[in-house]
Amino acid sequence: MFEVAELGHKVSKEEYNALVPELRTQLLEVQEQLKETNFPVLVLISGVDGAGKGATLTLLNEWLDPRYVTSYAFGIPSDEEAERPEYWRFWRALPKRGEMGLYISPWYSRPIAQRVRGEIDDNALDTALRRINTFEQELIDDGALIIKFWLHLSNDGQEKVIKKMSKDPQTKWRVSQLDKEHLEGYDRFRGIAERVLRTTSTGAAPWIIVEGLDTRYRSLTVGQHILDRLKAHLSKADEDTSPHRHFRPIISTSLARDVSILDSLDLGLVVEREEYKRLLKELQGRLSVLSRLAYENKVSSILLFEGWDAGGKGGLIRRMIPAIDPRHYRIIPIAAPTDEERAHHYLWRFWRHIPRAGFTTFYDRTWYGRVLVERVEGFATEVEWMRAYAEITDFEEQLTEHGVVLVKFWAHISKEEQLARFKAREETPFKHYKITDEDWRNREKWDLYVQAVSDMVERTSTEYAPWTLIEGNDKKYARIKALSTYIDRLEAALKAKGVKVNKALKGL
Amino acid sequence: MFEVAELGHKVSKEEYNALVPELRTQLLEVQEQLKETNFPVLVLISGVDGAGKGATLTLLNEWLDPRYVTSYAFGIPSDEEAERPEYWRFWRALPKRGEMGLYISPWYSRPIAQRVRGEIDDNALDTALRRINTFEQELIDDGALIIKFWLHLSNDGQEKVIKKMSKDPQTKWRVSQLDKEHLEGYDRFRGIAERVLRTTSTGAAPWIIVEGLDTRYRSLTVGQHILDRLKAHLSKADEDTSPHRHFRPIISTSLARDVSILDSLDLGLVVEREEYKRLLKELQGRLSVLSRLAYENKVSSILLFEGWDAGGKGGLIRRMIPAIDPRHYRIIPIAAPTDEERAHHYLWRFWRHIPRAGFTTFYDRTWYGRVLVERVEGFATEVEWMRAYAEITDFEEQLTEHGVVLVKFWAHISKEEQLARFKAREETPFKHYKITDEDWRNREKWDLYVQAVSDMVERTSTEYAPWTLIEGNDKKYARIKALSTYIDRLEAALKAKGVKVNKALKGL
Repeated sequence: MFEVAELGHKVSKEEYNALVPELRTQLLEVQEQLKETNFPVLVLISGVDGAGKGATLTLLNEWLDPRYVTSYAFGIPSDEEAERPEYWRFWRALPKRGEMGLYISPWYSRPIAQRVRGEIDDNALDTALRRINTFEQELIDDGALIIKFWLHLSNDGQEKVIKKMSKDPQTKWRVSQLDKEHLEGYDRFRGIAERVLRTTSTGAAPWIIVEGLDTRYRSLTVGQHILDRLKAHLSKADEDTSPHRHFRPIISTSLARDVSILDSLDLGLVVEREEYKRLLKELQGRLSVLSRLAYENKVSSILLFEGWDAGGKGGLIRRMIPAIDPRHYRIIPIAAPTDEERAHHYLWRFWRHIPRAGFTTFYDRTWYGRVLVERVEGFATEVEWMRAYAEITDFEEQLTEHGVVLVKFWAHISKEEQLARFKAREETPFKHYKITDEDWRNREKWDLYVQAVSDMVERTSTEYAPWTLIEGNDKKYARIKALSTYIDRLEAALKAKGVKVNKALKGL
Repeated sequence: MFEVAELGHKVSKEEYNALVPELRTQLLEVQEQLKETNFPVLVLISGVDGAGKGATLTLLNEWLDPRYVTSYAFGIPSDEEAERPEYWRFWRALPKRGEMGLYISPWYSRPIAQRVRGEIDDNALDTALRRINTFEQELIDDGALIIKFWLHLSNDGQEKVIKKMSKDPQTKWRVSQLDKEHLEGYDRFRGIAERVLRTTSTGAAPWIIVEGLDTRYRSLTVGQHILDRLKAHLSKADEDTSPHRHFRPIISTSLARDVSILDSLDLGLVVEREEYKRLLKELQGRLSVLSRLAYENKVSSILLFEGWDAGGKGGLIRRMIPAIDPRHYRIIPIAAPTDEERAHHYLWRFWRHIPRAGFTTFYDRTWYGRVLVERVEGFATEVEWMRAYAEITDFEEQLTEHGVVLVKFWAHISKEEQLARFKAREETPFKHYKITDEDWRNREKWDLYVQAVSDMVERTSTEYAPWTLIEGNDKKYARIKALSTYIDRLEAALKAKGVKVNKALKGL
C-alpha cells in the first residue's frame, strides 16, 4: 500500500518556485468561491511521525486565507471532554459551511495509538473505525468535503528525518521521543496504519498517501490535491444542489400502515387526585435521593420531551425539576437555530449541550424535530429525514455507551383533548402566550404527524434508548408515568454501577 | 441592615392564590416585550442557606416562559475553567439580549466563602468586590438589567428551616451539612454578608433583601419585584434608546495634540537581508524552545495584532508560528460578529477564545476594534468607545493577573508605504484578494485613525500590558522586532515562574 510513497519523489527548487505562485493564486480563488457555497471542508493530515504533519499545517495556514481556515489538534482530553462521549470534542471542532478546518491526526490518532500499544485488539480497532466511517459519512451526507492525507516515510526515510532534525535547534528536542518510537515499532505501526487506511478509505473520503521525505514534493502534492478536490466539489455542487448524492435508503416494510402505534395507547388511564398527591410526593422524594446519588456518582441523564402541542411536555418537566438540585440540571428549549448553528450539521447544536458527568439535561423538543416538524413541513427532504433515523440512533448510541441515562418521552393526547386545551389556553390569561397560530396550523396536519411519530418510534426505539409513550389525556396520570419511568431508568443505571441505592432510599 | 427582613413577613394562602395569577400573566407579558428589546436581564439569587434560593429558581422557571430563561449555577471550576481567568465562566454564562439568566450565588459565592473560612482578609475581599462592581457596571453600561436578591433568614429562622427540612425526605439529606454551617458561623456569615451587600449595592444594581422564611411571601416579593424592575427598565429603554445612561467620561488632558506618538517612530529602521536570515533562524530557534517550555509549564500567551491595512500583521504572525507546535496555538481572525456574538456584550466574543493553560493565541485584529474602526466609522458612540478604554484595561488586567503573557503589537507603516503595498497587492495575483475597496476607503481616513491609535496607546498601554509599536516600513526589521519582543516577554515570564530557561537555551 505504501510502496508508491517510498520511491523517493522529489521536486527541484526551480520547479517548485515556478509552480507555487500559480497554485497559491488558484487556491485563494477557489477559497473565495467556497465562501459562497453551503458546504464545509475538512482537511485531515495524519501519518508517520516526522513526515511533516506540522509543517504541512503551517504551510497551508500560509497559503490559504487564514480568515476562513481554522486548525485543530487534539491532545489529552480535558475533564470537560473526558466527561462526555469521545466525539463531543470533534463535533465542537467542525468548520462552518463555506470554511475549512485543518486537522492533525484527529479521530484516527487514539485508536491507532491504542492498537500500537496493544491496549486494544483488531476487533476493537475495527469497531473504532466503524464509528469513524459513520461520523465521516454523516458529514459527507450533509455536503461536507473531506480530504484525508496520509504523510508517509519509509523506515530509512524516518531515520534520515530524525538525523536531520537532530541538527536543527528548532526540532532537535523532538528527536529523543521520535527516535524511541521509531526503533520500537516502525513495522508494527506500518501494519496497523495499513489496516486503518484500508478500512476508512471510502469512495467519498479516500486516503491520499503522500511521500513525506521531500518537503517541496510533499507541499506541492498536498496543495495541488486540495485544489483539485475543491474544484471538483464546487462543480458537483453546481450540478446538483442537493448535498445528498450518496444516500441509499434503507428498505422499509412498514411505511404503509392503517393502525398507528399511537392508537394502541389507552387514553382513558387516570390517576385520582388524592392518589396523585400521594404518589407525586413519594416519587419526587425518590427522585431527589436518586438524582443526588447520580450527581455524586457522575451518572448523567438526558431527558427528551416530544409530544403534541398542548400535550403537557412542560408539565412533565416541571414535576421533575423540584426534585433535582437546580445547580445540577439545565433545560434546553429548542427553538429556531442561530446562524452559528445553521452553519453546521443539524446535530451540531444538540452535541453542544451534552451535559458533563453527573448533570441532568432536559431537552424541550429535540433532534427528533428532523423527523417530525421538518419532515411534515418539508424543511428536510425525504432523503434527509429518512437518513436521520440512522444518524440519530448512532448519536444516541454514543451517549448511552458513554453511560448517559437517555429517556425519551412522547406526550400523547387525543385530537379532541388538544382542542379542549387550546381553548382553555386562549381563555387563561397567563397561558395565552402558549397558543399561537402555528399551533392551529400544526393541528390541521394531525394525520401527517401521526405517521411521522409512528415511523419515529418504529425506527428509533432501541434497546439502549427506548421511547416511552405517555398517555396524556389525564395530566396526573401522565406526570406519574413519566416520573416513574425516569426513576426506574435512573435506579437501574445506578445499581448497574454498584451504587447502594436501596440503602439510600430506605426510610423514605 | 437585615432587621427588616426578620420581621416575620407572611402572606396567607388566600391572598397568595388571589395575587399569583395576575402576577404570572404580567410577568409573561413583560417577557414578551423583553424579547423585542435589546438588553439582557440577569437575576441573581444569593443569601443565607436554607432561605429558598433553589426553590425560588424553580419557581421562576415555572412562572416565566422557559424558552427565554436559562439558569446557571457554578460549582467547583472544571479544569478548562480553572486554567482561565476566574470570570471566564461568568462571561460564558451571560444571557442574550432579550433573554433572562437566573443565577444562584454566582460571582459572590467564592469571595464570601473564602472570607468566611478566613482564607482572605477584608482587604482581599474588597478587591474581589471591586472586580464584581466593575463587571456588573460593564454589563449595565451595555444596557443590561441586573436584579439582585438576597434571601435572608434570622438565626432563629435558619434553625426553624433546618428542623422543617429534616422532616422532608426530599431535603433531609441537606440537613447535616447545613446544620454544621449554621452552628459554626451564622453571626460571622451575617457580618461578612453585610459588608458585601454594602459594597456592591449600587444605584443601578441594588440588593433587594427578602425575608426567606415564608415561602409565599418570598415568592410574591421576588416575582413582584422582577415585574416592577422589568417594567421600569422597559419604559426607560423607550425614553432613551442609548443604554449608556450611567456614563461619566474620564477627564482627559491630552485629547488635543499636534504630534502623534506614531510620528515619533523611526520608519527608516532596516535589517539587511543576510543579517535578517541569520537573526530569524536564531530567534525562531529560541522561540521554539521557549514556547515548548511555556506549554510544559502552563504559561499561556495572547498576542494581539493591530495595524494599518497592509501593515504586515499577517507576516509578523507567520514568522512566529513555525516556531510553535501547531497543536498548541490558534489564530483567531476577527471578522464580523455572528448573531450569537452580536447578542452579547462586545467583549463576549473575545472572552470565548481565551486559551487554556500553556496555549498561544494570536488575535488577528482584536477588541481594540472598539476604539479604532468602530470609533472612526461611528459604529460605536463616543461614550461607548470612551468607556471601552477602561473596559479593555480591566479585561487585560484579568488576563495578566491570571499569568497570561499578553503582547500587543501595532504594525505601523507610513502612508506612502501603504500606497506602494496596495499597488503591489493589486498586481500580485495571489495577494489580490487581500485588497478591497474598503481598504481604499479606510486609507482616506488616515488622520482619524492616527488620532484613534494615539489615544489607544495613551489609554491602554499599561505596565502589565504595554503596546509595542512596530516600525514596519522595512518588513524584515518589523519581523525581527516583533519576534524579539515576544521572546523577551515570554522569557521573563518563564524566569519569574522559576523555569530554568538558560539551561534549556544553552547550545542554541
